[in-house]
Amino acid sequence: MPALRVVLVEPKNQGNVGAVARAMKNFGVEELVLVSPCPIGVEARQRAMHGTDVLEAAKIVPDFDSSIEGADFVVGTSGVDTESEKRFARIAVPPREFAEKIRQADGVVALLFGREDFGLLDAELRRCDLLVKVPAVDAYPILNLSHAATILLYELFIEKAPSKTVRRMSSLERDRLHRALSDLLDATEYPTHKRLRTKIMVRRLLGRAVPSKWEFHALMGVFQRATKRIRRLEGKP
Amino acid sequence: MPALRVVLVEPKNQGNVGAVARAMKNFGVEELVLVSPCPIGVEARQRAMHGTDVLEAAKIVPDFDSSIEGADFVVGTSGVDTESEKRFARIAVPPREFAEKIRQADGVVALLFGREDFGLLDAELRRCDLLVKVPAVDAYPILNLSHAATILLYELFIEKAPSKTVRRMSSLERDRLHRALSDLLDATEYPTHKRLRTKIMVRRLLGRAVPSKWEFHALMGVFQRATKRIRRLEGKP
Repeated sequence: MPALRVVLVEPKNQGNVGAVARAMKNFGVEELVLVSPCPIGVEARQRAMHGTDVLEAAKIVPDFDSSIEGADFVVGTSGVDTESEKRFARIAVPPREFAEKIRQADGVVALLFGREDFGLLDAELRRCDLLVKVPAVDAYPILNLSHAATILLYELFIEKAPSKTVRRMSSLERDRLHRALSDLLDATEYPTHKRLRTKIMVRRLLGRAVPSKWEFHALMGVFQRATKRIRRLEGKP
Repeated sequence: MPALRVVLVEPKNQGNVGAVARAMKNFGVEELVLVSPCPIGVEARQRAMHGTDVLEAAKIVPDFDSSIEGADFVVGTSGVDTESEKRFARIAVPPREFAEKIRQADGVVALLFGREDFGLLDAELRRCDLLVKVPAVDAYPILNLSHAATILLYELFIEKAPSKTVRRMSSLERDRLHRALSDLLDATEYPTHKRLRTKIMVRRLLGRAVPSKWEFHALMGVFQRATKRIRRLEGKP
């Protein structure tokens, strides 16, 4: 995984800058570079919330070239297919493909976001190794700056994040649960011709739900308790 | 694909409400419901940009229950694993899994976002069929409200899975199934202090599994037959 640098090119709204800093903090990205931004004040800090340290550490540079200095790979974000993009047959990839590609990169990746109104200019787009575009409805494809940044940072984060560690029902527990169901079907004198089908249905359903250990115990409780109650009422051990 | 209703529960910041309306417009979602929100004024409209029509059409309701009226499936968003979640061992699925599941649902899906500071309350979380959580760094996992909404709407938008033709359990059937479970817990004299927890576990498990009509009938058969057998053995009708 490369180091990521988020570059905002001439942002006009300090609230957006703060919101981007917050999203960076949420997804563990620290380096923020601002190319001749609007004044950054109270509103930016308020929107940054716990990302104020990212905001305070932001490097302000006077021009585009300085912002991509030292970057090994430059990615531009693109809101619409401009005439220029068509002309140069630039193909913007969707965020997920972008995340897969970036994960394999080394060094420093600069991720550029353009102005709220005009995006990135032609000359800036030409410096990009890759263009990425967030899909949206044709009628209104322009996302808010911090929303676009959030989606790309999110895709990068989940691309590298290890899967969650909720403790799932083990295969032994699964088998115990199916035996408990089977016992219950016996106890209720469930019609023989329906039993197999019912067991398969429940197995499928549990297979899709992937129960936690807690849910395993809850279901076991329901099945076993019903079976025991029937056996006791029948006078059987 | 079901119809989507975005519900903001007691939002405190009108800028966030506007930003959510913009994200909804970007991703083609129209129905916005606000539960006793802060005053909605100029700032909300500015942040909504071309999503002002979504904002203007937002329905304001006085309480939580009104916001989920008519919803066939209720999804709650969760920023952190609260004590309560641990207690109930609630499993929140990540956004991609959420999108895959929702794609298969029918009817109206209500997607709930809690207060900026306190999220959704326990009683509200208990009404949810599914919980979803955006992964983020442990040190600062709380996303801005409109950022969280953007990610979930984005995942739904790009979920391209061909719509499944399997007929799913309806909300009426879901309620019948939960009543059948409740009857069974009564019949087995299930310990009172465990009942709520067991019901919630089963609700979540079914929420994640999105049962077919066939599976609904199979489970109903198991629950109802066990209850009847117990009642008959007890000599009750």
